[in-house]
Amino acid sequence: MTEDEFLKIRNRTEYLCENLETEDFIIQAAEHVSPAKWHLAHTTWFFETFVLKNHLPDYREFHPDFGYFFNSYYNAVGQRTQKNQRGLMTRPSVEEVFDYRGFVNEQMRRLLANSPSNDINELIYLGLNHEQQHQELLLTDLKYNLWLNPLSPAVINIKEYGPQPEESWEDISGGLHEIGFDGAGFSYDNERKKHQVYIEDFAISSRLVTNGDYLKFILQGGYQQPEWWHADGWDWVQANKINQPLYWINRTHNQFQYYTLDGVKDLDPQAPVAHISFYEAAAYAEWAGCRLPTEFEWEVAAEKLEWGLRWEWTNSAYLPYPHFEKAPGAIGEYNGKFMINQMVLRGGSVATAEGHSRKTYRNFFYPHQRWQFTGIRLAKK
Amino acid sequence: MTEDEFLKIRNRTEYLCENLETEDFIIQAAEHVSPAKWHLAHTTWFFETFVLKNHLPDYREFHPDFGYFFNSYYNAVGQRTQKNQRGLMTRPSVEEVFDYRGFVNEQMRRLLANSPSNDINELIYLGLNHEQQHQELLLTDLKYNLWLNPLSPAVINIKEYGPQPEESWEDISGGLHEIGFDGAGFSYDNERKKHQVYIEDFAISSRLVTNGDYLKFILQGGYQQPEWWHADGWDWVQANKINQPLYWINRTHNQFQYYTLDGVKDLDPQAPVAHISFYEAAAYAEWAGCRLPTEFEWEVAAEKLEWGLRWEWTNSAYLPYPHFEKAPGAIGEYNGKFMINQMVLRGGSVATAEGHSRKTYRNFFYPHQRWQFTGIRLAKK
Amino acid sequence: MTEDEFLKIRNRTEYLCENLETEDFIIQAAEHVSPAKWHLAHTTWFFETFVLKNHLPDYREFHPDFGYFFNSYYNAVGQRTQKNQRGLMTRPSVEEVFDYRGFVNEQMRRLLANSPSNDINELIYLGLNHEQQHQELLLTDLKYNLWLNPLSPAVINIKEYGPQPEESWEDISGGLHEIGFDGAGFSYDNERKKHQVYIEDFAISSRLVTNGDYLKFILQGGYQQPEWWHADGWDWVQANKINQPLYWINRTHNQFQYYTLDGVKDLDPQAPVAHISFYEAAAYAEWAGCRLPTEFEWEVAAEKLEWGLRWEWTNSAYLPYPHFEKAPGAIGEYNGKFMINQMVLRGGSVATAEGHSRKTYRNFFYPHQRWQFTGIRLAKK
Amino acid sequence: MTEDEFLKIRNRTEYLCENLETEDFIIQAAEHVSPAKWHLAHTTWFFETFVLKNHLPDYREFHPDFGYFFNSYYNAVGQRTQKNQRGLMTRPSVEEVFDYRGFVNEQMRRLLANSPSNDINELIYLGLNHEQQHQELLLTDLKYNLWLNPLSPAVINIKEYGPQPEESWEDISGGLHEIGFDGAGFSYDNERKKHQVYIEDFAISSRLVTNGDYLKFILQGGYQQPEWWHADGWDWVQANKINQPLYWINRTHNQFQYYTLDGVKDLDPQAPVAHISFYEAAAYAEWAGCRLPTEFEWEVAAEKLEWGLRWEWTNSAYLPYPHFEKAPGAIGEYNGKFMINQMVLRGGSVATAEGHSRKTYRNFFYPHQRWQFTGIRLAKK
Repeated sequence: MTEDEFLKIRNRTEYLCENLETEDFIIQAAEHVSPAKWHLAHTTWFFETFVLKNHLPDYREFHPDFGYFFNSYYNAVGQRTQKNQRGLMTRPSVEEVFDYRGFVNEQMRRLLANSPSNDINELIYLGLNHEQQHQELLLTDLKYNLWLNPLSPAVINIKEYGPQPEESWEDISGGLHEIGFDGAGFSYDNERKKHQVYIEDFAISSRLVTNGDYLKFILQGGYQQPEWWHADGWDWVQANKINQPLYWINRTHNQFQYYTLDGVKDLDPQAPVAHISFYEAAAYAEWAGCRLPTEFEWEVAAEKLEWGLRWEWTNSAYLPYPHFEKAPGAIGEYNGKFMINQMVLRGGSVATAEGHSRKTYRNFFYPHQRWQFTGIRLAKK
Repeated sequence: MTEDEFLKIRNRTEYLCENLETEDFIIQAAEHVSPAKWHLAHTTWFFETFVLKNHLPDYREFHPDFGYFFNSYYNAVGQRTQKNQRGLMTRPSVEEVFDYRGFVNEQMRRLLANSPSNDINELIYLGLNHEQQHQELLLTDLKYNLWLNPLSPAVINIKEYGPQPEESWEDISGGLHEIGFDGAGFSYDNERKKHQVYIEDFAISSRLVTNGDYLKFILQGGYQQPEWWHADGWDWVQANKINQPLYWINRTHNQFQYYTLDGVKDLDPQAPVAHISFYEAAAYAEWAGCRLPTEFEWEVAAEKLEWGLRWEWTNSAYLPYPHFEKAPGAIGEYNGKFMINQMVLRGGSVATAEGHSRKTYRNFFYPHQRWQFTGIRLAKK
Repeated sequence: MTEDEFLKIRNRTEYLCENLETEDFIIQAAEHVSPAKWHLAHTTWFFETFVLKNHLPDYREFHPDFGYFFNSYYNAVGQRTQKNQRGLMTRPSVEEVFDYRGFVNEQMRRLLANSPSNDINELIYLGLNHEQQHQELLLTDLKYNLWLNPLSPAVINIKEYGPQPEESWEDISGGLHEIGFDGAGFSYDNERKKHQVYIEDFAISSRLVTNGDYLKFILQGGYQQPEWWHADGWDWVQANKINQPLYWINRTHNQFQYYTLDGVKDLDPQAPVAHISFYEAAAYAEWAGCRLPTEFEWEVAAEKLEWGLRWEWTNSAYLPYPHFEKAPGAIGEYNGKFMINQMVLRGGSVATAEGHSRKTYRNFFYPHQRWQFTGIRLAKK
Repeated sequence: MTEDEFLKIRNRTEYLCENLETEDFIIQAAEHVSPAKWHLAHTTWFFETFVLKNHLPDYREFHPDFGYFFNSYYNAVGQRTQKNQRGLMTRPSVEEVFDYRGFVNEQMRRLLANSPSNDINELIYLGLNHEQQHQELLLTDLKYNLWLNPLSPAVINIKEYGPQPEESWEDISGGLHEIGFDGAGFSYDNERKKHQVYIEDFAISSRLVTNGDYLKFILQGGYQQPEWWHADGWDWVQANKINQPLYWINRTHNQFQYYTLDGVKDLDPQAPVAHISFYEAAAYAEWAGCRLPTEFEWEVAAEKLEWGLRWEWTNSAYLPYPHFEKAPGAIGEYNGKFMINQMVLRGGSVATAEGHSRKTYRNFFYPHQRWQFTGIRLAKK
């Protein structure tokens, strides 16, 4: 690990915030999102808590209360701010948080200058991958936080809606396949260990479902017809009066726009649909006479696919691979304790840091969540 | 299908209610349970709606409003009483519901006398299996309904707490195994079709976790230590102040009793623990240094196991088998639409009708639910 | 107090239940209403707890748990069933509750045979007035409990909708007036002591607002126009989607029926409107260019009015009169602790026991409640 | 109205914010409080909407969306930001809001330079009194917003806890008294018109209940004994686990501190208790063997009292005076529509702008609210 490698990833977090006003850093529009300020600080806290405090002799923490403020969910590290009150911490100020980042970077440079051991390097890689995950959350949380603001500010120049290949169906042969990570380089514990999975022959679409496709589902009454939906999905639609993807704006007579991090745009029918829940993805697939792939099918097919615009919902629940083991201590809380009630998404999105994802990567969210750049790829048979 | 086969199962439903007072049939203590009266009527409605109205010429329904009253969740069959208001329907009276049962039985006899076609017979078998499922719910719902009554009435003489084999570990060999139903006789669509699953070598316990085992987990602080729990499980424990299985009563200083359908009894440390959620089952397994088996492991091991006292939580989410297809129309709502957010349980319980379960049977509940006779079998490796 | 006086009132409670099925006695459709069985038992508990246990030598209570079951809100008497679980007590059965009534009546006869002291007689009068209040609640709770039942059963032959005098305005002269009870006979502590109140000249309507009047308010958009409503009333309308009185059924195109204890009837435009909240009463008055009278104005005008069909909302909050003092012990909880957040209603209703009300009587409910037979009388100037 | 009069009050609003960081202006910790930024803007919007747009020829509004953003509750003026989302409006920025204030002040100067009519002057006085009310809310909301921040920042140097006179009882003679405003100068519609009220002889305390007094109530178990409380108050205590005034911090063994706008301080036993609900005030009075005065008693006694440190809860509900009439249009929404469910407070507090209150002034809050500087003055007989 070199100082350059380290700073390249750390600096990107700050770069993403370049156009924000101080006010934009503070707010938290719902419990499941965090303020930008919090992401800036929490990723820094990770290095301070797990690397510097344990491995840099004589390290003195930047501020005695930051451990309490910026712990996310690590029970083993102690108490923390309630998640739904992150948007109420006006202090430390945004400026102090940037100072905190600078201070921790400086200390990390000291540590890196002394060729840390492999174990420490591994921890730092984990911290950088953690930071990249929070870079994606910083973007998706920001979008959610600013969306309720009637002025719909444009704050980040990111291309949310890329082009796609022609539609076709890839046939994939069944049989025993190897699943999971087993190479060099970084991977999460939830991708390991490599093991065999038996799958049957199937076909998978070469492209993601587009806004245009999805609009047909809407216009033909998909949100009003229970037959396409899981029972829980139908309850969710009814209880929340859902009738379109998150961020879509029905201007008049089904002329749609959507809110993006770059402001409000007209709906592009060619672009892949985004910000849909698992429930919507599954209902769409049912309506289309297809189904969602399992995460194993997806991984087997991945080399034949173009992916990376949307996190693709699979019909696999997030569960441990055979022989999965949690790391001891706080780091063991990273993945394992979330292996219930969530569905696996594969691929990556326009908000994912370059080089962060891979074909064995397992992302996961609750089936009703849709503030990520989630999308649909159909399978059949 | 003979009249005797038909009536034998139907009559058991009434037999279970023999000792109830009229008042006991009415109440609904929470949205997830139903009044006994409702089970008596709904199982009857199933035969009226799917068999008699379609297949007995000149059949006239018993009462024009019962379709609305006693539909459970079949969207394709129309509107229905809100689930949380089932306990408010004082009319039809209990007596009228028994009349309804008699009337429908009589009409079914007429139909059976005319040697119905295979298709109709299959529907009737589905109806009887449906009734057996509701017999189990009738018991578990009744237990929940009467539990809040300070008089803790004894209403059914059922042995809830049977003996178990000695503890030992069965070693099961991995490899490609066949999973799912493929024989003669009745099965549900969710057990089909038979397909191959690759599993690794593992070991599974010969007996279920006992009350005595579970008490150790309690006394050693299991409910106060987040490290054993899924994150959602820990939230559930905290939010609901959970610290023991449902129906346990901590008399003084950890001297426990529990409520049974036959009244309050002293805790039997040899009996298998019951009425625990998936969260508790998984936390217990983690604490014990083991894990829950997957549903595939369970099915492969089943022939070496004694089972049938408790529904056994597996670490498998309830998802479709390859090539699963829903039946057309209302019958297609039986299983498929619930394949999200629930975990599979295998085996059967003291409340399961004789002959109703089998080794490929897939039961399913939400991970926080515990009013069924649920239990724990450990696996390892 | 004679045995006949006592039994005449007690027996009326049972008479009201004559046409109920066992099932009808059990249910509780919302926390603010109680099952019929509970009223039968609680009124009996009152005599057992406050009269027999203290004043009949050697009295042995009917059942040791009934004190817990049938206490309503007397903190000084100990623990009790949670109010929202009254509908879950299937035991004691309806039959046992009738036995309880018989037993307590019998013991009361023993006590009455011995010419009880004035103090005890006063307690018994309080108990009988208490029972009459519960007779009214028994009727209004029953109406609410059965209303959600799609069969809308007719259970009591009570005339809910009587005739009224011609409309005219009575002019009342202002000045210092005496308010409150100061005569012979029974009164509640909240009506005492008599004191002076200064009021200004005003006019009051000779009749209650009718269904026909109220229908105009509806048809002219009253429920859609915030200008008539208190802020809290408008929030209540919006949050609960209120657009008509409770129990009205809009069959088609504003052809209304309503549910009564005697079954569903066509709306009678001449009858006084019923089952409206204070918010609706006040909004109607504002829309009509008038206002509600204060409770003091009402009392001063009472002798010139025909009243007794509807409890009439006043614009007075329920607060203590000067020198109000609570009785010591549990009986002191009867009225005083409710003197916040409620509005006073004056008069009486079709469900009020004969002879129970009087012109100084102060009834009180929360401003959003409407399951009583509440109505509107306008005042102006 | 001179430019100086106008600016003196307007500038105080900005002066109060002098020590705030940008972050402090944004947050909203609960629906019943507003961000500081919102108060700055809403008070400005009032002048723009009701004065400038109607009375300054050629006035062009500062920003077309601010009407939507900064309307509080005036239905007659149109749609507005949902109250619970005020803390999510990161734009307009704090800087823009100060620009908005400057712009509107400038335009008001233009208008004032032309000797506006009496009607317009009256509107401007209303706007300035409105601004003073929001100055108080700005302080109390800020205290509430910052209180949950673990750093407990000190942001305003205001003396919250002044000295008091010796304790004694003032005897006040009963009879007919004149109540309400009838002089020169500004008053709200809810203080008018002057009218007669008959009261009885009573006595009132010369000083407010102190922290030391209130601590006795706490230490003697006042929060655990239902007999002192209204039924609704007791429910509130139980449901919210209330056991001390808002902002008190029980360090160890009943050694108390409290949070103030100037940071955390040790509890001063001589200072008048603050931040208590009506429920607590009434329970304390009951425990002390006294009662709260009515608002009429308070007004009659006011000339003999020192007041102004705390808003003093009275036992009067907030209701209209005889002949109360709402002004036409949006201004009529100022007071009248809140005349339900709230209790009257009299006096003024350390956060009240100098000269803003008077003896006829009627403040009002819900009985559970306690984020204002509320206190207790006892009455008896």
